Amino acid sequence: MRCEIVAVGTEILLGQIVDTNSAWISERLAEAGIDCYLQTVVGDNSERMSKTFGDALERADALIVTGGLGPTQDDLTRQVVADLMGVQLERDLEIVERIRERFSNRGRSMPDNNLKQADIPVGALPIPEMPGTAAGLICPMEEGKVIYVVPGVPSEMKLMLEGTVIPDLVLRSGVTSVIRSRVLKTWGHSESGLAEDLAEEIERLDDDGELTLAFQASGIEGVKVRITAKATDREKSDLLLDSEEDILRGLIGDYIFAVDDATMESVILDLLRSQSLTFATAESLTGGMIGTRLTEVPGSSDSYIGSIVAYEGDLKNSLLDVSKDVPVVSQEAVEAMALGVCKLFGADVSVAATGVAGPSPHDGQEVGTVWMASNIGGQVESFKVVFPFDRTQVRQFTVITVLNALRKRLESLQ
Amino acid sequence: MRCEIVAVGTEILLGQIVDTNSAWISERLAEAGIDCYLQTVVGDNSERMSKTFGDALERADALIVTGGLGPTQDDLTRQVVADLMGVQLERDLEIVERIRERFSNRGRSMPDNNLKQADIPVGALPIPEMPGTAAGLICPMEEGKVIYVVPGVPSEMKLMLEGTVIPDLVLRSGVTSVIRSRVLKTWGHSESGLAEDLAEEIERLDDDGELTLAFQASGIEGVKVRITAKATDREKSDLLLDSEEDILRGLIGDYIFAVDDATMESVILDLLRSQSLTFATAESLTGGMIGTRLTEVPGSSDSYIGSIVAYEGDLKNSLLDVSKDVPVVSQEAVEAMALGVCKLFGADVSVAATGVAGPSPHDGQEVGTVWMASNIGGQVESFKVVFPFDRTQVRQFTVITVLNALRKRLESLQ
Repeated sequence: MRCEIVAVGTEILLGQIVDTNSAWISERLAEAGIDCYLQTVVGDNSERMSKTFGDALERADALIVTGGLGPTQDDLTRQVVADLMGVQLERDLEIVERIRERFSNRGRSMPDNNLKQADIPVGALPIPEMPGTAAGLICPMEEGKVIYVVPGVPSEMKLMLEGTVIPDLVLRSGVTSVIRSRVLKTWGHSESGLAEDLAEEIERLDDDGELTLAFQASGIEGVKVRITAKATDREKSDLLLDSEEDILRGLIGDYIFAVDDATMESVILDLLRSQSLTFATAESLTGGMIGTRLTEVPGSSDSYIGSIVAYEGDLKNSLLDVSKDVPVVSQEAVEAMALGVCKLFGADVSVAATGVAGPSPHDGQEVGTVWMASNIGGQVESFKVVFPFDRTQVRQFTVITVLNALRKRLESLQ
Repeated sequence: MRCEIVAVGTEILLGQIVDTNSAWISERLAEAGIDCYLQTVVGDNSERMSKTFGDALERADALIVTGGLGPTQDDLTRQVVADLMGVQLERDLEIVERIRERFSNRGRSMPDNNLKQADIPVGALPIPEMPGTAAGLICPMEEGKVIYVVPGVPSEMKLMLEGTVIPDLVLRSGVTSVIRSRVLKTWGHSESGLAEDLAEEIERLDDDGELTLAFQASGIEGVKVRITAKATDREKSDLLLDSEEDILRGLIGDYIFAVDDATMESVILDLLRSQSLTFATAESLTGGMIGTRLTEVPGSSDSYIGSIVAYEGDLKNSLLDVSKDVPVVSQEAVEAMALGVCKLFGADVSVAATGVAGPSPHDGQEVGTVWMASNIGGQVESFKVVFPFDRTQVRQFTVITVLNALRKRLESLQ
């Protein structure tokens, strides 16, 4: 089973947006054991879209098309696919109702333009998932081939791929080998450092064939180590992954903070919950980023109380008991912040950070200088890092670095 | 002059990395007035690469290939292009020297593997820029066509494109028109609604040819309206953009909050700075996101003081003067938060938000219910929205919606 991906959008061809959909879809296809040899981007032009879709279908058994499903005259995907199928577009009244519902939920009435989004090729099946106003479609083609049409909006596309397209492809393909992967997220070691630590293991696996390791430097997500296993069924793949994860934990376990979808935040919130601890944050240069990341996790309110963002120096004195005699970027200041926010909020645990994000030095400290602290029940630990990065990265690396320090302390308490 | 882009790399096809090169190159091509109708990604496979390059050259006059220039056996681009040219690879001694230099500069000796990177097709011209160990190449093809080969490493690719490839393409193309674009960012109207409001204008421009409009729904960035102008030089393009922006402001000005690189946050911070106002935020469901976005802007400390993130209900009572008798998601609560944080921080202006991000209802309110308020010098305005979204989107839309309400008030004060 061969599948190709075509992203439709002149804005991609003009470089105005980066197509991240194709990479995401490719990853899902690889996991499902479906080959993908080509990705293409084509503009909003009927003739070129038609040629591109047609060529792809000659090479492959299935084609996933993203984009071109909006309500404007630039949105041509439905018509182009209908022409390739040799059928007309027909208004689907069920889709009309679903679009109308989307608008009325937001207290708006549906513009007539949007009716166009309900015009689908005769014979195409609407994909059940429809979070927005664009309907995804399964379009049967000649020789048992198929075109899946999904919106370019990533959240909508992902729901449809996971809910319908990938399962349908797997069914059609009769895939017999299952490729599964597991991601170990690490923090505190470089990609080449990890590769050196794992050199012997990688060599051992090369002879083997069932398992492979790959590294992916992911900025503030750290370096991801991806284990990929190929076996005849999902259970066997997962057993291979389990045993390989054990081996890797023996070699680089100190750096691993999370697996797969778990994040630094979710791991910390789980640790706090299991120890029935409440948590607060005192932020300065991060401006609310630590709180933002923690509260992205549903259920964070079980442990997380809130934050004082003392962006201006005076607030640190008035609210957080930082003495006016110490510099705002100092060990004394960050420790007072960590203790002060726990006192003010009545929390058991806190982290605090104060530093210079840039672009200019501040208070005599160079850009990138950050003091970080964690407090667990009145025991404060603090440390300084000078990040050689720009403003955005200094802030991002501060968040994960201070959270990682707290994670290690919480794990050692278990 | 038509140009296509092919990115080579199995890791892109497997979704392990996102190809950002093609978008960047496309943008440079558009700026230079060179048409690009297709982008393709192909894996590290000689046969498929050869077919993909060949097909592209049939459609286009020029082809830019990124990637596949490394020293390993997976790096096939040089050989595939030589085959298409009908020539052999030959070791270029000058390139050998330059590679050796790269290594000695870093205090290392050159592994033999890297010699492969100096084997180039006979007749190909090395690109002068060579920041790494991979040489870029200009490869003349039949019928006056050309393949440019550049490395996949973005920093190396960019140097070669800007230094050699784009200037060479412009020279070959005899391009006399310059394409420039401007983005008007809007909030508060749907893509189809804007398209309806601008239908007559779009029709007028269609007859014209110098200017085009395009819409791009961009989630919490709103709907972007991109004006693209084509003229004989940059100055004329910019004049066209200016006059079209004026026309659009007359039609949909109420929704436009920023132009090009400006953001909702930067616009608000500029308004606050020009009116010498200090600013604080009181957050609940957003957990620090409003503060995070504001402090991403360098110089935000001119106006922005800080935030109380009262994620837990009790903090709203103890710190922000919210009465214990009112529900935490209510008009009374959000207005008290907006006033309370100004009082606590001594700020002139504030925004506040309290609501239910989900996944579960809270305090008798359904998911998506959000009360938002802004306070300017003691004058509070508040409103409620029920967002039909998931947790992440409810939080994101809250941030931009409450900031947009403040922007409108600040603009009306000017």
